Amino acid sequence: MAVIVPLEGERRAAARPSLDAINALVAEDLKEVNALIMRRMESSVPLIPQIATHIVAGGGKRIRPTLTLATARLCGYQGKRQLGLAACIEFIHTATLLHDDVVDQSRLRRGRDTANSLWGNKPSVLVGDFLFSRAFQMMVEDGSLPVLAVLSRASARIAEGEVQQLMTANDLSTSESTYLEVVKGKTAVLFAAACQVGAIVAEQPRGAEEAMDCYGLNLGIAFQLADDAIDYASTSAKMGKAKGDDFRDGKITLPVILAYRRGSEIEREFWRRTLEKQEQKDGDLDHAIALLQRHRAIEDTVERARHYGAIARDALGLFPDNAAKRALLETIDFTIERAY
Amino acid sequence: MAVIVPLEGERRAAARPSLDAINALVAEDLKEVNALIMRRMESSVPLIPQIATHIVAGGGKRIRPTLTLATARLCGYQGKRQLGLAACIEFIHTATLLHDDVVDQSRLRRGRDTANSLWGNKPSVLVGDFLFSRAFQMMVEDGSLPVLAVLSRASARIAEGEVQQLMTANDLSTSESTYLEVVKGKTAVLFAAACQVGAIVAEQPRGAEEAMDCYGLNLGIAFQLADDAIDYASTSAKMGKAKGDDFRDGKITLPVILAYRRGSEIEREFWRRTLEKQEQKDGDLDHAIALLQRHRAIEDTVERARHYGAIARDALGLFPDNAAKRALLETIDFTIERAY
Repeated sequence: MAVIVPLEGERRAAARPSLDAINALVAEDLKEVNALIMRRMESSVPLIPQIATHIVAGGGKRIRPTLTLATARLCGYQGKRQLGLAACIEFIHTATLLHDDVVDQSRLRRGRDTANSLWGNKPSVLVGDFLFSRAFQMMVEDGSLPVLAVLSRASARIAEGEVQQLMTANDLSTSESTYLEVVKGKTAVLFAAACQVGAIVAEQPRGAEEAMDCYGLNLGIAFQLADDAIDYASTSAKMGKAKGDDFRDGKITLPVILAYRRGSEIEREFWRRTLEKQEQKDGDLDHAIALLQRHRAIEDTVERARHYGAIARDALGLFPDNAAKRALLETIDFTIERAY
Repeated sequence: MAVIVPLEGERRAAARPSLDAINALVAEDLKEVNALIMRRMESSVPLIPQIATHIVAGGGKRIRPTLTLATARLCGYQGKRQLGLAACIEFIHTATLLHDDVVDQSRLRRGRDTANSLWGNKPSVLVGDFLFSRAFQMMVEDGSLPVLAVLSRASARIAEGEVQQLMTANDLSTSESTYLEVVKGKTAVLFAAACQVGAIVAEQPRGAEEAMDCYGLNLGIAFQLADDAIDYASTSAKMGKAKGDDFRDGKITLPVILAYRRGSEIEREFWRRTLEKQEQKDGDLDHAIALLQRHRAIEDTVERARHYGAIARDALGLFPDNAAKRALLETIDFTIERAY
C-alpha cells in the first residue's frame, strides 16, 4: 500500500491541468524576458534593484508576461518585440504589487516577506513608481502608440479598481456586480492588456485583437475568483499566502458576498462584526469557513469562475488549433482547478 | 508716517521680481489647462476626483504647466498641443506630491491638510497611480513618442531621486554633489521636461530643445535650493508649509550640509542628535537656525541658487528678445529672490 498510494497520487496529478504546456511553449522567450527584467531594473541608486529584485525575482509565476509571449505565438508573430513588452507588463504588475502591499499592509507575498515589511512603506511606494516609469520608457523604446494606449489605459483602470476596492473593503452591501468591477480593475484588465499586446505586435486584424482582449479579461476574472476561493481553502505553504488573509483584512470577496446573502440574520451579524467592524477573535476564521461551506459559497465562487473561463475558451474559437492554442486553453482549466 | 510706510512697502514690492509677467503671458492658455485638468480627473470612482481635486485645486502655483506654456510661446508655437501636455505635467507633479506626502508623512501642503492626513495613505498612493497613468493616456492621445520619451524618462529619474533622498535623509555625511543629484531628481528633472516639451511641440531644432532642457533643469535646481533656504527662514503663513518641516523630518538639505561642514565638533554633535538620531526637543529648531545664521549657511544656499539661476539665464541667450523671454528671465529672479 505504501507503494501504491504515491503512484496513484502521481497518476492523478498527471491528468490534472497544469501550466506545463504554456511554460514549455514560452520557455526560451521567457528566459530572455527574465534577463531583460533584471537588466532594466538597474539604477544608480542601489536600493532600487535591491527591492525590485526581491519582488520581481520572488518566485512569481510570470503569468502575465507568459500570456503576452503565448498570445504573440498564437497570432503567428515571429519577431522579438514581445520580449520587451512582456517585461513592461511584469514591471507594471510588480509596481502594483509593491503599492498593494503598502495599501494592504501585507507581511507575506508568495510565502516571503513583503518589501514593505523588510524596507518599510516609503521605498516600496517609490520603487513602484520607478518600475512603472521604467515600463513606460521601455514601451516608448518599442515605439508603438497602440501598445502605449492599451497599457496606459489599463494602468489607469487598475488604479481605479484599487481605489474602488478600498471603498468596498469593509462594506458587506457590495453587490456581486460591483465586486466584479473591482476584480476587473485589480486583476483582469492587466491580463487583458497582456494578451491584447500579443495580438498588436503580430499586427493582427482588429477582430483578433479583440478576441485576445476578451480571452485575457475573462481568464483574469476567473483567476481572481479562484484566488478568492483559495484564500479560504488553502494552506500558507501551498499558495504562498496565509490562509484567511482576505478575512483578516476585512476584504469582501465573492465567497463572503454569497454567504452573507444566503445566511441568517445571526450569521450576517457575525460577518458584520468580523469584516465591517473588524472585531475578530480566535476561532472566527474557522467559523467563517464553516459558514462558507454551509452555503456552498466557495464551490459556487469556483462555479462562477468556470463561467468566465468558458467565455475565455470561446474567445479562442476562431484561432486554428495548434500548440499555442492548446496551451492557452489548458491555462484556463488550470486557473480554475488549482482551487482544489 | 502711518501713511508713508505702507506706500514705501508697496513701491519696493513693485520693483521686486514676480511671476506677474509669466502669469499674464500664459493666463488664457492656463485657463484652458485648468479646465482640462478638472475634466481629465473624472472617474467612475468618486473618491478619485475628490482627492485629485483637493490637491490639484489646492492653490499650487502651476509653475510646471506655466513653464510648458511659456516655453512653447518662446519657441513661436501657435497650436494647441501645449495645453494637454501642460495638464499631463501637472498630473505627474500631483502624483509625485501625493506619494511624497505619504513617504514624508506630511500633514500640511500649501497651508492645507494633505490628502494622506484627510483620507489616509492608501487612497493617496492609489490616486497618485491613477493620475500618473492618466497623464500617460493623455500623452498617448497627443501622439508624440519624443514627448513620451522625455516624460517617461523624467518620471523614472524622479522616482530614483526620491529613493536617493530617502537613503540620505538622515545622513550628515551626504556631500553637496550627492545632494545636488537628489535635487535634480526630486525637482529639476520635471522642470526640465516641462520646458523641453514646449520646444518639442514647436518642432524646434535640437539646439533649442537642449536650451529649454538646460533652462528648466537649472531653474529647477535654483527653485529647490531657494526652497531649502525658505524652510529655515519663512513663516507658515507665507509659504504654506510649517517652518522647520525639513528639520523635523531629519532632511539633510544644503543649509545643513554647509553648516555641518563649517561647524565645531560640538555643533556637529547637535546636528547628529537632532537630524541623524532625530532626538529633538523644544528650542532645537531655534538653535539650528542660529547655527545656520552663524555660518551664513542660508545666505550661501541662496548664493548657490544664484549660480544655477545664472546658467538658466544663459540658456535663453540665443532666443530673440520678446515678452516670453523677459517673463522667463524674471521667473529665474523671482525663484531666487522669494527666499527673502
